[in-house]
Amino acid sequence: MTARIVHSIEELRAAVAARRSAGASIGLVPTMGALHAGHRRLIEQSVRETACTVVSVFVNPIQFNDAGDYDKYPRTLDEDARLCGEAGAEIVFAPSNAEMYPQPQLSFVEVAGVSERLCGAFRPGHFRGVATVVLKLFNIVQPDLAYFGEKDAQQLAVLRRMARDLNVPVHIVGVPIVREPDGLAMSSRNRHLSAEERRVAPSIYRTLLRAQALVAAGVFDPGQVSREVVSEMERQGLRVEYLEIVDPHSIQPVERIVHTVLVATAVWLGSTRLIDNVVCTPAS
Amino acid sequence: MTARIVHSIEELRAAVAARRSAGASIGLVPTMGALHAGHRRLIEQSVRETACTVVSVFVNPIQFNDAGDYDKYPRTLDEDARLCGEAGAEIVFAPSNAEMYPQPQLSFVEVAGVSERLCGAFRPGHFRGVATVVLKLFNIVQPDLAYFGEKDAQQLAVLRRMARDLNVPVHIVGVPIVREPDGLAMSSRNRHLSAEERRVAPSIYRTLLRAQALVAAGVFDPGQVSREVVSEMERQGLRVEYLEIVDPHSIQPVERIVHTVLVATAVWLGSTRLIDNVVCTPAS
Repeated sequence: MTARIVHSIEELRAAVAARRSAGASIGLVPTMGALHAGHRRLIEQSVRETACTVVSVFVNPIQFNDAGDYDKYPRTLDEDARLCGEAGAEIVFAPSNAEMYPQPQLSFVEVAGVSERLCGAFRPGHFRGVATVVLKLFNIVQPDLAYFGEKDAQQLAVLRRMARDLNVPVHIVGVPIVREPDGLAMSSRNRHLSAEERRVAPSIYRTLLRAQALVAAGVFDPGQVSREVVSEMERQGLRVEYLEIVDPHSIQPVERIVHTVLVATAVWLGSTRLIDNVVCTPAS
Repeated sequence: MTARIVHSIEELRAAVAARRSAGASIGLVPTMGALHAGHRRLIEQSVRETACTVVSVFVNPIQFNDAGDYDKYPRTLDEDARLCGEAGAEIVFAPSNAEMYPQPQLSFVEVAGVSERLCGAFRPGHFRGVATVVLKLFNIVQPDLAYFGEKDAQQLAVLRRMARDLNVPVHIVGVPIVREPDGLAMSSRNRHLSAEERRVAPSIYRTLLRAQALVAAGVFDPGQVSREVVSEMERQGLRVEYLEIVDPHSIQPVERIVHTVLVATAVWLGSTRLIDNVVCTPAS
């Protein structure tokens, strides 16, 4: 089965309205394309839980703080549409920049606090751009459920907070990370890795598992966990941009690990930036 | 007929959903209560144009930059509900602060440019608070049409831009200013005026009409219009906070009056701040 590709907001709204008025529940999977097995998992869950799944494919310029990163972000719409169809999606919404931003964008959504640390500290304006485009997509598609990957844990926390704070009538679903057999988290950016970088990349997750083991073994001091993990990552040849131990909802640092925490990291392998995270639950 | 008063978001959503699924179009009139003939005009237009009119009554704390102004803002829910019923509204939505802001509000909508001059320059954060609460109300009520008074011309421009930029599926309707017989624009704040201030207040509009006459007579220089109007206002005993001649959509100053412009002012009478505006069309 192939999914229907729609480029205009008007056509998308009409297609979804027709399904909604026939009683169908609507699921939205917002993506930037270059779809992989992680996205496929999101789509499959939406297909199981809703009657009509819309996958949006839009490389959103306002969430890139680095024009080079935006330019080199992979665009593979034909393959993406094929994967969407195979996974059971009904509609692929692939608008142009002019369709999404017909005039200079003056209105932005900011989510304070949750947006500020981790990627927010290193990519100024990133979460403002994400929150704004996702709110636009919510308003265009008006889904009942929307699916986001837990790899982007901070993004998920930002969007959940946005939806609650702004009373957005959508239920946000987080979907677990899909990993390669060697543990590397699926990412559209993995295709930029050289063979040597690809060989090193699985050490990101292996080292995060070390944090999980430390916390499970009763280490309560985030500083100690973080020091051990960072030095192990550096030994493996990773350049660590950040490694933080935070509350999974507020994305604020914890003083002692007494509840479940998120251990989140961004590392550089050559000119490729990769993120990953694990949830750690302390010994009870 | 009396309108049904609803305090909870859940109950409001259920009431509106029932009407919507029966095919009714929904109109929303967002207010801060203390309703007067200007609000009544908004409600009546919504009642004519939609099947189910919801009037929200909520004195929104996050749009007040002055706690004293927030505290003294009039609260008259019983009278408001009566007026809503008489005007044909079906539902009055009167949530508490805790219902609208159950946790610290971290998510805000900012509309750059349009928000920055006029009242935006003198009330920092005001339009951020307005845009945020109106987006929340849109998400709670999900109206087909929403009605706002043209007295708050900058607010109307901000909300129109927000709705366009964020693809909010609502049609925003501007409704003309309602004036007292002597020309004073209806406002919930007029009740704060002393007898002497009330006597002076109509000179706001009278002087704005002078701007309209100058423009119609071929005066193209906004500086000249503004100087004449401000000095006339001061002669009348008004303390002028601002008087600006701007594009009605972008709320940016014009260099020459060659298209329709908005002449907007805020003045103080004692401790009461009043706003008013006129649209001026140049001689063709």
